[in-house]
Amino acid sequence: MTLFYSVTASKPVKYQLHKSSNLFSHRNKILLMNRENQHGGKCFVIIDNALYGPLYTEIVSYFEYHNIELKLIKVEGLESSKIFESVLYVISELNDFGIQRRSEPVLVIGGGVVMDIGSLACSLFRRGIPHIRVPTTLMGYVDAGIGIKTGVDYQNCKNRLGTYEPPSAVILDKGFLETLPSRHIVNGMGEVIKIAVIKDGRLFEDLKSHGKAAVLNHFQELGDSILDASIHGLITELETNLWETELKRPSDFGHTFSPIIEMKLAGELLHGECVAIDIAISSVIARKRELISQGRLDDILNMLDIIGLPCYHFIMTIDLLMAGLEERTIHRNGHQNCPVPTEQFQCEFLQDVTPDELKHAILYLK
Amino acid sequence: MTLFYSVTASKPVKYQLHKSSNLFSHRNKILLMNRENQHGGKCFVIIDNALYGPLYTEIVSYFEYHNIELKLIKVEGLESSKIFESVLYVISELNDFGIQRRSEPVLVIGGGVVMDIGSLACSLFRRGIPHIRVPTTLMGYVDAGIGIKTGVDYQNCKNRLGTYEPPSAVILDKGFLETLPSRHIVNGMGEVIKIAVIKDGRLFEDLKSHGKAAVLNHFQELGDSILDASIHGLITELETNLWETELKRPSDFGHTFSPIIEMKLAGELLHGECVAIDIAISSVIARKRELISQGRLDDILNMLDIIGLPCYHFIMTIDLLMAGLEERTIHRNGHQNCPVPTEQFQCEFLQDVTPDELKHAILYLK
Repeated sequence: MTLFYSVTASKPVKYQLHKSSNLFSHRNKILLMNRENQHGGKCFVIIDNALYGPLYTEIVSYFEYHNIELKLIKVEGLESSKIFESVLYVISELNDFGIQRRSEPVLVIGGGVVMDIGSLACSLFRRGIPHIRVPTTLMGYVDAGIGIKTGVDYQNCKNRLGTYEPPSAVILDKGFLETLPSRHIVNGMGEVIKIAVIKDGRLFEDLKSHGKAAVLNHFQELGDSILDASIHGLITELETNLWETELKRPSDFGHTFSPIIEMKLAGELLHGECVAIDIAISSVIARKRELISQGRLDDILNMLDIIGLPCYHFIMTIDLLMAGLEERTIHRNGHQNCPVPTEQFQCEFLQDVTPDELKHAILYLK
Repeated sequence: MTLFYSVTASKPVKYQLHKSSNLFSHRNKILLMNRENQHGGKCFVIIDNALYGPLYTEIVSYFEYHNIELKLIKVEGLESSKIFESVLYVISELNDFGIQRRSEPVLVIGGGVVMDIGSLACSLFRRGIPHIRVPTTLMGYVDAGIGIKTGVDYQNCKNRLGTYEPPSAVILDKGFLETLPSRHIVNGMGEVIKIAVIKDGRLFEDLKSHGKAAVLNHFQELGDSILDASIHGLITELETNLWETELKRPSDFGHTFSPIIEMKLAGELLHGECVAIDIAISSVIARKRELISQGRLDDILNMLDIIGLPCYHFIMTIDLLMAGLEERTIHRNGHQNCPVPTEQFQCEFLQDVTPDELKHAILYLK
């Protein structure tokens, strides 16, 4: 064996999260960022099916005003749509429409599912064309929209296929949350509570004092500090580990048992609702190991309950949770790396969670 | 519009090209590199259909000896197999078999097509699992095997879908070339001549003096310097531009008109044969613009001919070549960036190739 050549390179990644509002107001040019020409050319827009009708006229008018040829396609924002066929549909439309490879970013406007599908399509087409993410659900706003992961489910395995594809930019407009169905506001709160419990005690206090009010208000007049802290907590966590080189990821809290529950329930519960159940299970395990106080456990479970998130589902059995843990152990390259909270609003990674502990958690939460 | 957060990160890439031989000799452990355990565990191997029969016994014996559970799947190495369905087949087998996410690299053993398919499957599965490339054709050895591009054709568009996925290592064993059908040796020479013409005058002289003999000998007893110079020329070109940030790529020489010819002929000509035709067209254009001497043009066309590569195919029409150029112009983000050779064994990028020049080239080569 002889070494012939050693290839060394480094791929720089840089993208910005911007806040804006009234995105389709003709004078707002944020949707045109990173285009070579702000007038003329083409723009391919992927939009959540739920927003297609309500926003159609505004979007068409916006691009007409800027003399940009628009192709607007809709994608269903349901977990059951998160399959490779949806990606191929987007790709087929992209190929027919024909845009410049680098200077006409695709806009992906929607919730987590639409962003996962749209970003994956952009990632594969011509080995990657730029895309701008515009999250329109709370889940997209605080979680799926801001990182670089794309993905679809495969053979009932959650996010089994995907890529790491940094967006060219992320545009945050909480105005979209105003008309979002309340259940989807609550859904996103699963990820917000996750960040609070393992990273940000001050955010946890904020949530206790006015989390419920902010949810009821759809974050329109209050709750800015909650959104900001949640995004900041997650993005600083992701930024140093964008490609998951490190498989002990604090942001995996709530994501050990939830994938198998979510797949098993096939859409009955939303992603954030399954994350909430996982937060509950993991917190009971942490309590049993005395990593958190009884007071903290009560606080966490109360918060889930007040916000309207579940702590339990009858589908939870020891066998199912163990199967989920085993699958995650493969995904974490042979280690459980199960994140559980500590009293100091940090997390610890367990490597030896047992069926007995899961049994205790199930009975406790029941 | 307010900037909320700016994400900055850098993805380091490092992989090595190793030379080895007798890969399936029990004592040779190079195929086990980058595994956490050199004894036990699992190994998923993707192999070119043409090698499945001849190598089956050796491969099974090798992994049995090292007590590694083997899953060996075959993929057809034809351009017509380079479609997403083949990627999904590999993914389905990967998902059934179940390997560790990081410490059990997949082996991809085959020519360019098999490597493009296998690497893309590895790139998508769990957002990327490591793979080691073992090129077994000259095209794989000097070109497809050593870079980071993966891809499949889509709706008759060459490599329309793919990713950039650095291999975990590349193992070069020219022993595979011994039994390779001669047409496939000649095929790989298209890429070797490409590198010589635009980058390496010494390699060009080497090819003139003993290129034909090396081809006839399948590079077994002679031609090492040709292989080494060709790989070295390409990899140093790729290394500084792995993600094609710069769209003026000298290694695109021979790849402006060839994609559309290759797709149009649907497998009648191999990739390197189409590249040869493109080299001929581009060189005639360069001569017409007096970027190269008549002597150099004669040398290039003679070399293609002596090696056994075509310079012309009746399918070449002005319309087809212009359509190919226009497609490449989109791929090169609005610029023709058409690489043509200079007398100094470098290349220049043209932005204004005309139908008249293509007409001249077609008539000249006919």
